[in-house]
Amino acid sequence: MCMTFKLPTAVDGTVVAARSMEFPMGMPTQLAVLPADFAGTAAPAGGVSWTARYGVVGMGIFGRADWLVDGLNTEGVSAHALYMPGGYCTYRDPVGDGTDLAQVDLAAFVLGTCASLDEVRAAVARVNVVGTDPGMGFVPPVHCLVHDRTGSIAIEFHPDGTRVVDNPVGVATNAPFLDWHLTNLCNFLGVSAESPPAEVVGGLTLSALGQGEGLRGIPADYTPPARFVRLFTMLRLVSQAQDAHEAEQLALHLCNAFDIPPGAIEESMGGHLVPEVTVWDSVLNLSTPRYAYRMIGNPETYVVDLSSVDFTGPARLQELRSTGGFTSLTV
Amino acid sequence: MCMTFKLPTAVDGTVVAARSMEFPMGMPTQLAVLPADFAGTAAPAGGVSWTARYGVVGMGIFGRADWLVDGLNTEGVSAHALYMPGGYCTYRDPVGDGTDLAQVDLAAFVLGTCASLDEVRAAVARVNVVGTDPGMGFVPPVHCLVHDRTGSIAIEFHPDGTRVVDNPVGVATNAPFLDWHLTNLCNFLGVSAESPPAEVVGGLTLSALGQGEGLRGIPADYTPPARFVRLFTMLRLVSQAQDAHEAEQLALHLCNAFDIPPGAIEESMGGHLVPEVTVWDSVLNLSTPRYAYRMIGNPETYVVDLSSVDFTGPARLQELRSTGGFTSLTV
Amino acid sequence: MCMTFKLPTAVDGTVVAARSMEFPMGMPTQLAVLPADFAGTAAPAGGVSWTARYGVVGMGIFGRADWLVDGLNTEGVSAHALYMPGGYCTYRDPVGDGTDLAQVDLAAFVLGTCASLDEVRAAVARVNVVGTDPGMGFVPPVHCLVHDRTGSIAIEFHPDGTRVVDNPVGVATNAPFLDWHLTNLCNFLGVSAESPPAEVVGGLTLSALGQGEGLRGIPADYTPPARFVRLFTMLRLVSQAQDAHEAEQLALHLCNAFDIPPGAIEESMGGHLVPEVTVWDSVLNLSTPRYAYRMIGNPETYVVDLSSVDFTGPARLQELRSTGGFTSLTV
Amino acid sequence: MCMTFKLPTAVDGTVVAARSMEFPMGMPTQLAVLPADFAGTAAPAGGVSWTARYGVVGMGIFGRADWLVDGLNTEGVSAHALYMPGGYCTYRDPVGDGTDLAQVDLAAFVLGTCASLDEVRAAVARVNVVGTDPGMGFVPPVHCLVHDRTGSIAIEFHPDGTRVVDNPVGVATNAPFLDWHLTNLCNFLGVSAESPPAEVVGGLTLSALGQGEGLRGIPADYTPPARFVRLFTMLRLVSQAQDAHEAEQLALHLCNAFDIPPGAIEESMGGHLVPEVTVWDSVLNLSTPRYAYRMIGNPETYVVDLSSVDFTGPARLQELRSTGGFTSLTV
Repeated sequence: MCMTFKLPTAVDGTVVAARSMEFPMGMPTQLAVLPADFAGTAAPAGGVSWTARYGVVGMGIFGRADWLVDGLNTEGVSAHALYMPGGYCTYRDPVGDGTDLAQVDLAAFVLGTCASLDEVRAAVARVNVVGTDPGMGFVPPVHCLVHDRTGSIAIEFHPDGTRVVDNPVGVATNAPFLDWHLTNLCNFLGVSAESPPAEVVGGLTLSALGQGEGLRGIPADYTPPARFVRLFTMLRLVSQAQDAHEAEQLALHLCNAFDIPPGAIEESMGGHLVPEVTVWDSVLNLSTPRYAYRMIGNPETYVVDLSSVDFTGPARLQELRSTGGFTSLTV
Repeated sequence: MCMTFKLPTAVDGTVVAARSMEFPMGMPTQLAVLPADFAGTAAPAGGVSWTARYGVVGMGIFGRADWLVDGLNTEGVSAHALYMPGGYCTYRDPVGDGTDLAQVDLAAFVLGTCASLDEVRAAVARVNVVGTDPGMGFVPPVHCLVHDRTGSIAIEFHPDGTRVVDNPVGVATNAPFLDWHLTNLCNFLGVSAESPPAEVVGGLTLSALGQGEGLRGIPADYTPPARFVRLFTMLRLVSQAQDAHEAEQLALHLCNAFDIPPGAIEESMGGHLVPEVTVWDSVLNLSTPRYAYRMIGNPETYVVDLSSVDFTGPARLQELRSTGGFTSLTV
Repeated sequence: MCMTFKLPTAVDGTVVAARSMEFPMGMPTQLAVLPADFAGTAAPAGGVSWTARYGVVGMGIFGRADWLVDGLNTEGVSAHALYMPGGYCTYRDPVGDGTDLAQVDLAAFVLGTCASLDEVRAAVARVNVVGTDPGMGFVPPVHCLVHDRTGSIAIEFHPDGTRVVDNPVGVATNAPFLDWHLTNLCNFLGVSAESPPAEVVGGLTLSALGQGEGLRGIPADYTPPARFVRLFTMLRLVSQAQDAHEAEQLALHLCNAFDIPPGAIEESMGGHLVPEVTVWDSVLNLSTPRYAYRMIGNPETYVVDLSSVDFTGPARLQELRSTGGFTSLTV
Repeated sequence: MCMTFKLPTAVDGTVVAARSMEFPMGMPTQLAVLPADFAGTAAPAGGVSWTARYGVVGMGIFGRADWLVDGLNTEGVSAHALYMPGGYCTYRDPVGDGTDLAQVDLAAFVLGTCASLDEVRAAVARVNVVGTDPGMGFVPPVHCLVHDRTGSIAIEFHPDGTRVVDNPVGVATNAPFLDWHLTNLCNFLGVSAESPPAEVVGGLTLSALGQGEGLRGIPADYTPPARFVRLFTMLRLVSQAQDAHEAEQLALHLCNAFDIPPGAIEESMGGHLVPEVTVWDSVLNLSTPRYAYRMIGNPETYVVDLSSVDFTGPARLQELRSTGGFTSLTV
């Protein structure tokens, strides 16, 4: 139901992250630009007000450029709101003292005001994160993953308070909280890009039937724990990219590997089953900030170079390139 | 190390197949066009000569438009040479009576001369398939999968002779032969797009941690049996496409799900490890014949509409669009 | 639904095999003794008649000492009729020329007349194996596994005839035929008695949560392929026994590991579900012929030393020690 | 590396628990009897002193009847010290105020003084659990599982203090702490004693190859998480026992299923690999208190009926029946 990861640093130093939005179709989403001096106002009445310092490009929902579920700022910090179902996510009650901030505000707030993970940690410590319904009919439970070129953190809403925890593996999916997933990785050590060697038993030679047996036991189902394990495993094994171009393409190949074909999984919503799909993927170059996305209905991937964006003026929204096809070729 | 599949027929009747080439980089490959009246000559001296009736578009190797590892003809028949390592593939000895045909000739031969699976069965029965080295340094073992709008077959080279077998599931990967894989599917029944319901044990409610647990037990490794099972499982579950556009896009999403990130698997070649990657994917519309491909180094997918191709003149080759990047967007 | 295996030879040269009868409760079974000069008559009218040369101890069904589903002869040859459902087993039609032998006769025939696997191969080549119903209400499909101190074979009833195949791994379960299982083992190479070493990722040390992770990916379900894989894997790893006593005890520990707790699996019989259980286990010392068994309802294991058995007189049956409990202890 | 479980209550109301000691061979262990008025003295200097109220039978280590790793009292309360490696277990520092109690004292303390889980909770709240080395060369990390006829709890030593947590599933193995395992069970819902129904694909009928496919995806490796999942799964499925005899035998069959054949797993101790084995199993009838055990080197199971034990006089030890064989039978 969503994932994010950060690739190992490329040979040329480039750091690329990515994210998928795995959800039923239908949440209104647009490409959003928040200006560098964006004046933010949190959704809760009497909540946080802030003035941004950094321009942001990302995915705004329900017609709001500042309700970001995904985004990247000009300093190479990215934020990703991922679903956290199952009763784990527990928002605070509003306190009305100017510190209230809704979960839907969080990404715009930290990306607008923070240039590093340390600044994110400090910013989150100053606010009281409450839950609001952006228009879905319920208050969506989330956790917020943040990457920069140096590391990754998870902002989690525990029953006993908001926690900002280190994410040493740079991977996240959904429920439960990160510490459970990190422990679970201990069950999947010792994988290899190579198949195990042949064995001779009773004169019979048993050889791997092909490449890839070194990943035996890695699960292919789509539960959050299975996707976390599979993603972590692949990140351990993938070849280091040489440069920004290769790193961005590698990130897209990893997104491919987690693409959910429509129908493969379904969930009950409002009493009937709907397919959960990979609605979009984003690839984020944190070093030379570029924000790329690909929609389920269009095989093309579009990229915004943040250095080319006009981060003045009002916040703005652009329709996503949701439909498209293959490129015609003459032979 | 390669796969092919055929989607369930779309609501509008469109049938789409696809294939991935999973291999180390480096086999010289070009987009090939064989004219409708192509005069074919088999690689073995004194082998089969044939005159084609149908135009073909596909992937030619080692500079030869008629050495196809993948292709589609104007009648909606597709052929796919997939690797078959492990000592399973056993070619015939040449007999020199005009029936010898090399494995590298097979796809051009059947696609040029056959408009249906029955014609393929008959054509294969008339030839003696031997092995040749197209320039790889060894004789590549293969099996050849053929789809048309009505079904799928596998052409396999057993120690006791060539066999053309029905492929009721429309899926293939690599070793061993198809019957083993079909039996193996019996170990993976009962999957579901839905997660299992919650259970209460000792007052504790245990709920799925997210969607997708209905595929528990499906393997994620890259061995041929595991890919066969995973592909078959997805094909059982995917939503039926409405039309040709949706079906082609769905096929590409399935290819995505099997994309091998470089480094995830490696094989020993000539004494050192090289990554095995998804070098290219093809998507083949069998109803309104269109041949699409996507290269590992270019996220764009290119399509040739066979109705627009000039199938007269000599066979010809075109360089593949091997490199590319994201499409720039202004916001 | 049954298994058999042969342990690696002990340091002192002892060879021990074992078998479990996994079935719904209720098939009438008794401990059987066949005299060394037993005059055998096959179940089919006008079938094989034979005079035995070797005494046999085993499990007779339906009140017949010569309808053995399991047995051991004085020469250290053992035979085990295991279920082979799923339509694989195809018996011959009776021919009425004195060569017909029912599947229920097979074990008594080979154990009474053969002192080696070669003799078994020759004996089976001389008969025409048909199917009969010993009283179950249907003709039970089986295959027959034979061990001696030097090797193991499987007697299988294929649609195109009876095949006696080498069993280099000395393991058998149920459907499908042996060659499928042997190929399937190739998917489970590279297991280890040791857990994989710890890995450090992003400063986080990931260590195995305990011993035994080297067997990750081995299935625990009860299908015939899963039990074959798990049994083969354990046999590769177990410590070599020092002597006959240790080998017999090790065989029983392996049987333990495959004991099916009542209720864990059920099958539909006559329209309602019945538990399939491990009705009994047998442990067979092939070197100093001893036949031991343990019933589901009695934790004690009983052993018959074949050197102490009077193999003269008529065939005879003894009730199995089906019920029992723990041994009382005073402290 | 150890497990414990409690069976569903039998039809006649009997509650039976069990435990296995999975460890390298060699820890000196004897059958221990603690009198009903045992005067306990904790291992730490200036620690807890207590006078027991209930007689106890169990497993004492290093020649001490009051250092129990397993035990049952006359009130039907059982306690089981299970290993908790991996740095999870964190004992308190001694405080010297009369509340210090070593982990090796814990079972004797709670079994001698408590007749219910509530009393255990209260007793544990009054003490400060420190770690001591009973003679192993290091301070063994443990957690202590307690069952009575009404429920189960786990006593865990967390970095921030001792926690007594409910164990609604009545299952325990080893690291990590219980809450992680309970969450992990959510990944293994929907198992069934029945195989999934046959499916028809492209005219091909795919049927389960035998019974037991309803447990597909359950792991067979020996890590603590895998054993916890497998044990929980079996407990959900097993048939309810009718009475005490059946329940005790069922518990032993479940122990069988987790018996570790010597060599299947090994661990590094003092620089060389040693097999980890199921050194002994215990079966504990909590309703009519009976304590049964079975050693790795002896297939017989011995039982002590607590109603027959003289619980006066000093604590005492009895050698375990460590060696034995099959019972000879004459036919």
